[in-house]
Amino acid sequence: MKTEPSNEILATLIDSGDHASVEQFLDRLSPLETAYAVSRLDDDTRSRLIRLLTPAEAAEMLRDLPEEQASGLIAEIDPEAAAAIVERLPLDEQVDILGEIPSFEVDAILDEMPPANARQTRQLLRYAPDTAGGLMTSEFLSYPSTTLVADVIADLQRNSQSYKEYQVQYSYITDISGSLIGVLRMRDLLLAPRDTEIGAVMLPQPIRVEVDAPLHRLIQLFEEYRFMGVPVVDSQERLIGAVERSAIEIAKERQVRDSFLRFSGIVRGEEFRSSPFFRRVMRRLAWLTPNIALNIMAASVIAVYQDTIQAAIALAVFLPIISDMSGCSGNQAVAVSIRELSLGLLKPNEFGRVFAKESIGGLLNGLVLGILLGTIAFLWKGNMHLGFVVGTALAANTLLSVLIGGSVPLFLKSLRVDPALASGPVLTTITDMCGFFLVLSIAESMITNL
Amino acid sequence: MKTEPSNEILATLIDSGDHASVEQFLDRLSPLETAYAVSRLDDDTRSRLIRLLTPAEAAEMLRDLPEEQASGLIAEIDPEAAAAIVERLPLDEQVDILGEIPSFEVDAILDEMPPANARQTRQLLRYAPDTAGGLMTSEFLSYPSTTLVADVIADLQRNSQSYKEYQVQYSYITDISGSLIGVLRMRDLLLAPRDTEIGAVMLPQPIRVEVDAPLHRLIQLFEEYRFMGVPVVDSQERLIGAVERSAIEIAKERQVRDSFLRFSGIVRGEEFRSSPFFRRVMRRLAWLTPNIALNIMAASVIAVYQDTIQAAIALAVFLPIISDMSGCSGNQAVAVSIRELSLGLLKPNEFGRVFAKESIGGLLNGLVLGILLGTIAFLWKGNMHLGFVVGTALAANTLLSVLIGGSVPLFLKSLRVDPALASGPVLTTITDMCGFFLVLSIAESMITNL
Repeated sequence: MKTEPSNEILATLIDSGDHASVEQFLDRLSPLETAYAVSRLDDDTRSRLIRLLTPAEAAEMLRDLPEEQASGLIAEIDPEAAAAIVERLPLDEQVDILGEIPSFEVDAILDEMPPANARQTRQLLRYAPDTAGGLMTSEFLSYPSTTLVADVIADLQRNSQSYKEYQVQYSYITDISGSLIGVLRMRDLLLAPRDTEIGAVMLPQPIRVEVDAPLHRLIQLFEEYRFMGVPVVDSQERLIGAVERSAIEIAKERQVRDSFLRFSGIVRGEEFRSSPFFRRVMRRLAWLTPNIALNIMAASVIAVYQDTIQAAIALAVFLPIISDMSGCSGNQAVAVSIRELSLGLLKPNEFGRVFAKESIGGLLNGLVLGILLGTIAFLWKGNMHLGFVVGTALAANTLLSVLIGGSVPLFLKSLRVDPALASGPVLTTITDMCGFFLVLSIAESMITNL
Repeated sequence: MKTEPSNEILATLIDSGDHASVEQFLDRLSPLETAYAVSRLDDDTRSRLIRLLTPAEAAEMLRDLPEEQASGLIAEIDPEAAAAIVERLPLDEQVDILGEIPSFEVDAILDEMPPANARQTRQLLRYAPDTAGGLMTSEFLSYPSTTLVADVIADLQRNSQSYKEYQVQYSYITDISGSLIGVLRMRDLLLAPRDTEIGAVMLPQPIRVEVDAPLHRLIQLFEEYRFMGVPVVDSQERLIGAVERSAIEIAKERQVRDSFLRFSGIVRGEEFRSSPFFRRVMRRLAWLTPNIALNIMAASVIAVYQDTIQAAIALAVFLPIISDMSGCSGNQAVAVSIRELSLGLLKPNEFGRVFAKESIGGLLNGLVLGILLGTIAFLWKGNMHLGFVVGTALAANTLLSVLIGGSVPLFLKSLRVDPALASGPVLTTITDMCGFFLVLSIAESMITNL
């Protein structure tokens, strides 16, 4: 007997309008199953689900969804209902979700929220996503340096419920002006006499970052030191947040993931098949249309040599092979360069190193592939010259492709263009042009033998 | 004035053989700069560097390098020297580094290490990398339940130096047989009377995972609960380790990264341009050679239609365009499917959903691209029929490509083949064959008009 898929059960429960059983059912699902089931509801059922749940329940559910899905849901409902849900999320998740919604809708939602919360959220929304400000949480512990150890312990005890999700390995210590002057490790608290001021047991002059520190600086910092979090200060050295190690790990993962997606032509954020139809189609098309222009540019080389192909029609069979194989070889070099660049093992001006390392490898691989394809061409038509043309062209173009593929990401990086986004199309266009030119010009020079 | 690159300064210092200045120089570099400088040394200088440093200094340096580089270095030096360095690394890093070295070399190194350490490391090496056993650390706090709160605090105080890098939000509590029976949060320790047994203040029956739990199960667990670490037990419920949230975040990042690399034809682990030359070349070739076979298979469709091309030579210009554009469209669908599969938003048997979602989008994008290319073909040759052939073929093949591209990852996943590795070549081969067939068979049917 097959069990009914969770989304269908959920849809039936929503149709029944029975709040308690919907909430009970969602409660039993893991975050993954929730995301799955909710993404499968049609738009109408999904809005009815949101209306059926209390704001607190809806907020709990949103936390289980990928960011892009959660924002989509919040953008769909009216600002008042959205505000009631959003204000129940932790501050950093409010910012993550609102950050993906058009700003006029964000304003409408924030206007419905309690002013104090709205002010904090607005403040955080101003920071760019991949900076200390955009990555920090406002949920951290901080005490003035004159607080007694006993009072800190009492505060922890009193608020243990609201601190539940805090990173509490450290508390940050400020002076009367709110400037960061120290960090207090929990274990030091454990060992200190209860009537000391925490200023006496804190570690002074802790490492800190400024609010506009970029992600790569934070990645370096967390690699260099093994701490779990780092305090964030504004330009006046006032403590305004803390970046946790896990936020950096997540940002790194997102960076790699976005590279992968852009490399495959999924631009401007993740696409899920539950995203709105026209947005999906238009975003894909936005990538395909420039590509068709580049392709036509490359193929125009073939148009120049039509007479050569006419005279040796077998060449038409090998043109797409050489185009595709050069693309494959070049992409390997692109991927290695993108990785090395992102790890800092390669600097954007080190063309020489890439050329030196790729040239011998490209020569060797080109020879192997060229001999392979040349032999096959020879065996197929029994024509040595055809084998020579095809093999030589592939060998030479493989070498060219890895040199170009290895250096295009460096070139794009120094132009401040995202290598993952543009390397593929640039590489393909150039290697296709070179490949077609090589095959056809060599063929033309020995046309009487083909 | 240009400053000398750090690798050149380092090489000069190594050549001078002055231990103190080499160590001082390395000490000043960040992990990133260390990795950069060390990767640029030639093999000989690098081995001299290792011999120059004390084992503890070499261990500290290894921790700054990417895993693949660190293993390479350890594999190059003699087992005795390697053992002296490895035994100074934290246990989980010993395992990470030895895990990438051929097993006979690992044995030689372990034989030189203190037996107790070697035994622990051997034990951990037995666990598969992407399981709880492979991801766990052995550096966690655990106490028998009868320990007094005061004794735990005293232990923390006494060993604060060696616990420095532990994740100390929790300690795990065992019964006399070593079975996990509870978890103790640091903050509870803070609040408890010092003469109570920790068994009385611990949280009983904590969530735990078995040592062979796979990564995706751990990802789900950390999504479901917001804790920082989870204890790992063997089949007898004995506590043997702890998986930290950050280990899971790192494993997720590695998974996405490896997908990206395999998708680009970099198989069997990362490649750096500092890796040994022949390994780099052979690994790339291992991916290119099957690809050439697939390409020949696809192009054989063209061979069948040589007469058609002969009669309408302009077709030769459009074959590579259609091949490449279909690849682009199909790859977008591949990337979305791979992401949805890895997030659990798509199940490997949901071909129906992929077809439904991709078909309308593919139809629309196919029409746009087909009309675009068809118009260009018409304008170029002033031949309506050529425009029709090319446009129709591209439109139809775009639709086909997204259907195939969207479903190939599902198909591979259910065959337990890595979608990132094989989707690209499978997609390209099928869409090329279909694309060539469409252009050429439509052209053949109206050959008198071309």
